[in-house]
Amino acid sequence: MSVKIVVVGGGSSYTPEIIEGLIKRHEQFPVSEIVLVDIEAGKEKLEIIGHLAKRMIEKAQKPIKLSWTLDQRKALENADFVSTQIRVGGLEARSDDERIPLSHGFIGQETNGAGGIFKAFRTIPVLLELARQVHEICPNAWIINFTNPAGIVTEALLKHSPHKKVIGVCNIPYNMRHSTAEILEANPDDVKIEFVGMNHFIFGRNVFVKGEDRTSDVLETLLNADLDYSPANIVNLGWSKTFINSTQLLPNPYHQYYFQTEEVLKKDLKAYEEHGTRAEVVMDLEKSLFEIYKNPDLDVKPKELEERGGAFYSDVACSLMDSIYNNKEDIQTVNTLNNGAISDLPDDAVIEVNAVITRHGPKPIAVGRIPASVRGITLNMKAFEELVIQAAVSGNYEDAYLAMVMNPLISDEKKSKTLLDDLLKAHGVYLPQFNL
Amino acid sequence: MSVKIVVVGGGSSYTPEIIEGLIKRHEQFPVSEIVLVDIEAGKEKLEIIGHLAKRMIEKAQKPIKLSWTLDQRKALENADFVSTQIRVGGLEARSDDERIPLSHGFIGQETNGAGGIFKAFRTIPVLLELARQVHEICPNAWIINFTNPAGIVTEALLKHSPHKKVIGVCNIPYNMRHSTAEILEANPDDVKIEFVGMNHFIFGRNVFVKGEDRTSDVLETLLNADLDYSPANIVNLGWSKTFINSTQLLPNPYHQYYFQTEEVLKKDLKAYEEHGTRAEVVMDLEKSLFEIYKNPDLDVKPKELEERGGAFYSDVACSLMDSIYNNKEDIQTVNTLNNGAISDLPDDAVIEVNAVITRHGPKPIAVGRIPASVRGITLNMKAFEELVIQAAVSGNYEDAYLAMVMNPLISDEKKSKTLLDDLLKAHGVYLPQFNL
Amino acid sequence: MSVKIVVVGGGSSYTPEIIEGLIKRHEQFPVSEIVLVDIEAGKEKLEIIGHLAKRMIEKAQKPIKLSWTLDQRKALENADFVSTQIRVGGLEARSDDERIPLSHGFIGQETNGAGGIFKAFRTIPVLLELARQVHEICPNAWIINFTNPAGIVTEALLKHSPHKKVIGVCNIPYNMRHSTAEILEANPDDVKIEFVGMNHFIFGRNVFVKGEDRTSDVLETLLNADLDYSPANIVNLGWSKTFINSTQLLPNPYHQYYFQTEEVLKKDLKAYEEHGTRAEVVMDLEKSLFEIYKNPDLDVKPKELEERGGAFYSDVACSLMDSIYNNKEDIQTVNTLNNGAISDLPDDAVIEVNAVITRHGPKPIAVGRIPASVRGITLNMKAFEELVIQAAVSGNYEDAYLAMVMNPLISDEKKSKTLLDDLLKAHGVYLPQFNL
Amino acid sequence: MSVKIVVVGGGSSYTPEIIEGLIKRHEQFPVSEIVLVDIEAGKEKLEIIGHLAKRMIEKAQKPIKLSWTLDQRKALENADFVSTQIRVGGLEARSDDERIPLSHGFIGQETNGAGGIFKAFRTIPVLLELARQVHEICPNAWIINFTNPAGIVTEALLKHSPHKKVIGVCNIPYNMRHSTAEILEANPDDVKIEFVGMNHFIFGRNVFVKGEDRTSDVLETLLNADLDYSPANIVNLGWSKTFINSTQLLPNPYHQYYFQTEEVLKKDLKAYEEHGTRAEVVMDLEKSLFEIYKNPDLDVKPKELEERGGAFYSDVACSLMDSIYNNKEDIQTVNTLNNGAISDLPDDAVIEVNAVITRHGPKPIAVGRIPASVRGITLNMKAFEELVIQAAVSGNYEDAYLAMVMNPLISDEKKSKTLLDDLLKAHGVYLPQFNL
Repeated sequence: MSVKIVVVGGGSSYTPEIIEGLIKRHEQFPVSEIVLVDIEAGKEKLEIIGHLAKRMIEKAQKPIKLSWTLDQRKALENADFVSTQIRVGGLEARSDDERIPLSHGFIGQETNGAGGIFKAFRTIPVLLELARQVHEICPNAWIINFTNPAGIVTEALLKHSPHKKVIGVCNIPYNMRHSTAEILEANPDDVKIEFVGMNHFIFGRNVFVKGEDRTSDVLETLLNADLDYSPANIVNLGWSKTFINSTQLLPNPYHQYYFQTEEVLKKDLKAYEEHGTRAEVVMDLEKSLFEIYKNPDLDVKPKELEERGGAFYSDVACSLMDSIYNNKEDIQTVNTLNNGAISDLPDDAVIEVNAVITRHGPKPIAVGRIPASVRGITLNMKAFEELVIQAAVSGNYEDAYLAMVMNPLISDEKKSKTLLDDLLKAHGVYLPQFNL
Repeated sequence: MSVKIVVVGGGSSYTPEIIEGLIKRHEQFPVSEIVLVDIEAGKEKLEIIGHLAKRMIEKAQKPIKLSWTLDQRKALENADFVSTQIRVGGLEARSDDERIPLSHGFIGQETNGAGGIFKAFRTIPVLLELARQVHEICPNAWIINFTNPAGIVTEALLKHSPHKKVIGVCNIPYNMRHSTAEILEANPDDVKIEFVGMNHFIFGRNVFVKGEDRTSDVLETLLNADLDYSPANIVNLGWSKTFINSTQLLPNPYHQYYFQTEEVLKKDLKAYEEHGTRAEVVMDLEKSLFEIYKNPDLDVKPKELEERGGAFYSDVACSLMDSIYNNKEDIQTVNTLNNGAISDLPDDAVIEVNAVITRHGPKPIAVGRIPASVRGITLNMKAFEELVIQAAVSGNYEDAYLAMVMNPLISDEKKSKTLLDDLLKAHGVYLPQFNL
Repeated sequence: MSVKIVVVGGGSSYTPEIIEGLIKRHEQFPVSEIVLVDIEAGKEKLEIIGHLAKRMIEKAQKPIKLSWTLDQRKALENADFVSTQIRVGGLEARSDDERIPLSHGFIGQETNGAGGIFKAFRTIPVLLELARQVHEICPNAWIINFTNPAGIVTEALLKHSPHKKVIGVCNIPYNMRHSTAEILEANPDDVKIEFVGMNHFIFGRNVFVKGEDRTSDVLETLLNADLDYSPANIVNLGWSKTFINSTQLLPNPYHQYYFQTEEVLKKDLKAYEEHGTRAEVVMDLEKSLFEIYKNPDLDVKPKELEERGGAFYSDVACSLMDSIYNNKEDIQTVNTLNNGAISDLPDDAVIEVNAVITRHGPKPIAVGRIPASVRGITLNMKAFEELVIQAAVSGNYEDAYLAMVMNPLISDEKKSKTLLDDLLKAHGVYLPQFNL
Repeated sequence: MSVKIVVVGGGSSYTPEIIEGLIKRHEQFPVSEIVLVDIEAGKEKLEIIGHLAKRMIEKAQKPIKLSWTLDQRKALENADFVSTQIRVGGLEARSDDERIPLSHGFIGQETNGAGGIFKAFRTIPVLLELARQVHEICPNAWIINFTNPAGIVTEALLKHSPHKKVIGVCNIPYNMRHSTAEILEANPDDVKIEFVGMNHFIFGRNVFVKGEDRTSDVLETLLNADLDYSPANIVNLGWSKTFINSTQLLPNPYHQYYFQTEEVLKKDLKAYEEHGTRAEVVMDLEKSLFEIYKNPDLDVKPKELEERGGAFYSDVACSLMDSIYNNKEDIQTVNTLNNGAISDLPDDAVIEVNAVITRHGPKPIAVGRIPASVRGITLNMKAFEELVIQAAVSGNYEDAYLAMVMNPLISDEKKSKTLLDDLLKAHGVYLPQFNL
């Protein structure tokens, strides 16, 4: 049985990681063909990545046919898996997502803050079009989305595209599990964290090692700030004893934006003054990465890639595809339809949840109610996500304003408007739905 | 049939309003006995109010027996209605509620902000004890609560006391209806606003005049800032066209705290610097009010009372008692059990809702779902209210911290603790449940 | 202001009742025009009714313009209210609805049993077309539906037509209130019954007279079988002490079908043997009614009409139109969207509920949860109703089978099919959606 | 690490199966001690079973300490697992459960019909007492309940006992999976059925073999009546093409009671006339089984045991204990708290669901909504189960009547009472809570 994988956004600097992941798993997950797809503007990078990937596969001596193209529809023919790692507007747009909010006094992060709202606005229409093509050309293929904001984008696809075989992935649960394993001196495979919430807003409710409850040990390490599972692009300010004792939950790095807003903003502003936006830092990083990638002697994933924030994303995605292909019925943390798993959230919401991975998709494990301590803010964030999706699809100004003003990090009646207007202006070319 | 009313907190400066209200309605609502109850510390005020009330009743020539006492249990015997308008810790405590948050950089308001949390902590145990006494001594009596935070207190009583005949009232819906009527040049009795939400967090979803939908006309006036229904104690900053156009809802004055946080804070800080806290302003106001009340020639409610923020509260309460007594089946806006009326909120939540008032209590009119635009923040506020009640009853430090940190106006992991500690210290004597 | 009423199914023998109701209320509800509409097959009856109605109006000396027509679209122009009292297939179809189930050993009633399923199948497409016409021609008009099964039909219209101003009415709540009033020697206007459930499946949870709880007195009379509120077409077998004591609820006559199935079936079979189906009895009744109607000296509603089961239906409808027109804000029991009023049922279900009647429609009073004792069967019936609507709209054989087999009175895997097939065969001409 | 298992009802004829199961799994699940507990009346059987079990363990040469006792509290000390397989009142009581309903014209089955109601009434108080003892004496132990009605009993324990480590098991899902595997010529371990519902009322929604959807193939075999997964004690009447095509679900054998009521009743009556009740058949079977068990040369589970209806129950229980002990994270079908897994049912309901089995208990896989086709009847059955539990705990006559009259197989207002009275009379001695 042949397996064909299409990597949309194949010119991304992350692609070598996914290639490595597929090579590594080739015995149990025998991918026979990989097609890297990108857009005209990314042609040069696509070429570089394509050649590197080719060298990696040759070095590994795997019978994988690799090609790259700008013709997405052609690439999709007979695909089994379509992974998406696109960045509409490139790092320049991300730079605006970060810089413009900062200039208005708001955190400019690219997921559930102001920047993330616009990343969603730019991305959702493009991926809806992809999903429509997948549904038409390769209707049995799974879309594995790791484009941020991964949860919001996945919910948008599941709500508004005809294609329902869509799963979102993120490296945060992976990082939390691995850092926790390190602290507990356990094998990451033996560590299970019960998560509750959604992408970039999950809490760990319980930590088990081989079925033994080690939650209190892990919480203890948070108090001592010994545990750091922030990805490279996020600060780690630690958590106070009182917060951890009161919630009895394991926060994720993005919770700092909500409960340490002022400090994060201060750090971000300082970093901005010193190094420009994270996007600009990444641009430099990317430039040097591509320089490395160009080296015709390079035939493995260079370790410099791990310095990027998204490290392990592709590893998560490869594991997921492997388990689907092999109907492994192992448990992975994915973004998928709630379907009652969290009983406080709508059935059609996308949540980040431990799920049994089968050939017919992820089956989430029931979580029950959100703990009372974080129920309010979690419901608020999910409602906010719905507003973002609504606006991304409608292209309606008032909808966009609502998404902005109802984001807990903004929620200023007047500043929401000026911020919105600036962002709409900056990103106009990527927002055809808004008829600007 | 005789009707006995007990006014708990009878020494309050608002009492003349309730006396006036009962006199005014005497023909259809023939109250035969009023007992004013207060605590030792309020004895002097109680005496002043008692004498004034007596003069008012004599002037009006109504056959109402009036008395005042410090013996609450005795007062409750055979009561039909028990109104509560207490202030545990007096205006000094309120001053702390306002001053301490301001000193930490937070709005110090007395309802759903930091101050309100502590007002709830001080009030709930006292009113739970009252409700237990009512249940034992006059189990058929209705408790009409207009002690703030009125919604939270009412929910606490309905959840934790054996007495279930409890209704909360507030003057905000009354003010909104009356100001709207003025703008529309309509009779307030002909104006119906469909509210959605809870006390101090309601939105007006529709405005009808004699059944005709006038919502858009009213929203128009908000844009022009022509409509001012803020009570005396709250700023009125107006609302932007974009906010109103996007939500298509009529906000209440307290929404300014959430969507105009910075400006309100700035105004409050300025006012504090100039006049001290609102509590201190009120102390002066009270002092001069009681001077006026002492005048043995005064035998009506002096109009100076209307300058206080709570004006019309008692009018709302008198109307409510009248409709219960007469099984009027008219529609009033009260705080009562949700019971599904707002389908997104728990059945056992207390909401502020239009209800048909009958002898067997208020029957809320179904509202349906919260509009998507404000669903998130409304769910968040209700979950926050649950945390406040939980902490007020448990006296647990972690519970109190959660209430603080999950309030959208605070939500800073570290400042929540220092603010909490300061407030606990200031109010310790009124918080026996916390074992400080 | 002029008011135009269109009576669809104007040739019905009930029409004189509605004419009388409109005459009686003319002072406060000044109807200026009535158009009776019917189909070709009902032309003769329409003429008879038209002339009678004309004589009634003349006798009453009211300035109401009356006309009759077969041109429905024309009639709808400028309509304010459209009442529907149609019988697709006439009494012959009803006879089949009753006879065929009986011949298979099932109760053949025309509402929530097998017959009712087919009445819904025949009626829903016709009324959906009417609703589309109303939406196009007179979009501000209210449709007042008293075509049975009234609740199911109303839900179908609200779910599947673009027109949302639809209210269903039934005479059962009216009868229950009036019979209860008689027993309690009270004025019917002073009696309020809190209902829970849906059309033909409501229970009375509480009975209040002028706000005083008289529930237990009423339940007592049920034990003694003193209370009879069955309409003319339904048996009254009384209720056992144990049933009433255990549920503490006031059943409606149709509950006999569910809890006294065998006895009802026996009575129905006996009645069938003696007099034929109820439809045939009614055919005779109708024939003689129309003979009476023809009498050119008759200029009032003849009292013979009250012997029909549907008596008071039109009175209920007239009261409703009056309250809408006058924005009366009184409480009537209607079939309308649940919207959370019964928190166990879907928001988009139609329930039979006490509602405040305003110019902008009925506002249901929140009921809360269904009592545990009847929760299961009520949820079951509502799910069954959804299956009926689904099948009526889809015209799918399997959907129709599901409606049949999931009806608690049938629920036999094999007999459901033979019964279904027989009914489909008998009614085929009226079921275009089934492509038979 | 030692593992101690207590078998409550150890004198049951099923015990050899559980002993065999523990021997078979000893390598991975090293049970070190088994204590068989029974009551005075079962002493003789307990002795016979005890000796047989001893011989089985010796033959197998496993280091398992086996003992038997009437002292339950003593037995519970240090237990890790407590399995329950009791029959309060013995087969005589079961005979009454079957005979009495038949004599009133109702199916007399022992699970969700009239008989089952009384089995629940007799069993729940005894197991609540056991759960209290477990909670006190060995609080970390898991109770594995396979006493029928297994779902109802498990829900009663989870709602009303302080001990929350309770899991119910049943052999129906096991049988369905194994029979399906046979039909599909697949390894049972490769077959996964997605179930929806609760004990004895589950439907199979999808069948997967190694992740491939084979649902339609399985439904096909049902049409042809090729598939028989009825246990020995239940008829297999097959299912009609129409029923299967319409529901697109895999019914379980007990669904015959609900959709083939008349035929089942007829068969049961015939069987009763010919052989007496199933209980009486089983009494004979038991007698001969115990004769076989007594044979001092017998040292394995005799194959005659498999003829009993409950075969494989103990196998299911042993697999479950093994997976808990080893934190296997495999998927088994168990009775556990819903917690939102079926979004239409209450969080605190017990459902029968595929769950990931971990050391800290089963984690149900989210199911989503109940299919519309069977939603009504499933909700009805769950509400009925709640009434049974309510009555079993309250011992209130009216509660018991409600359970009876709201059972879809009975639902006759008057017969429910006579049947209830007869059953109460027959079982009085085992129903102390009813104060008869």
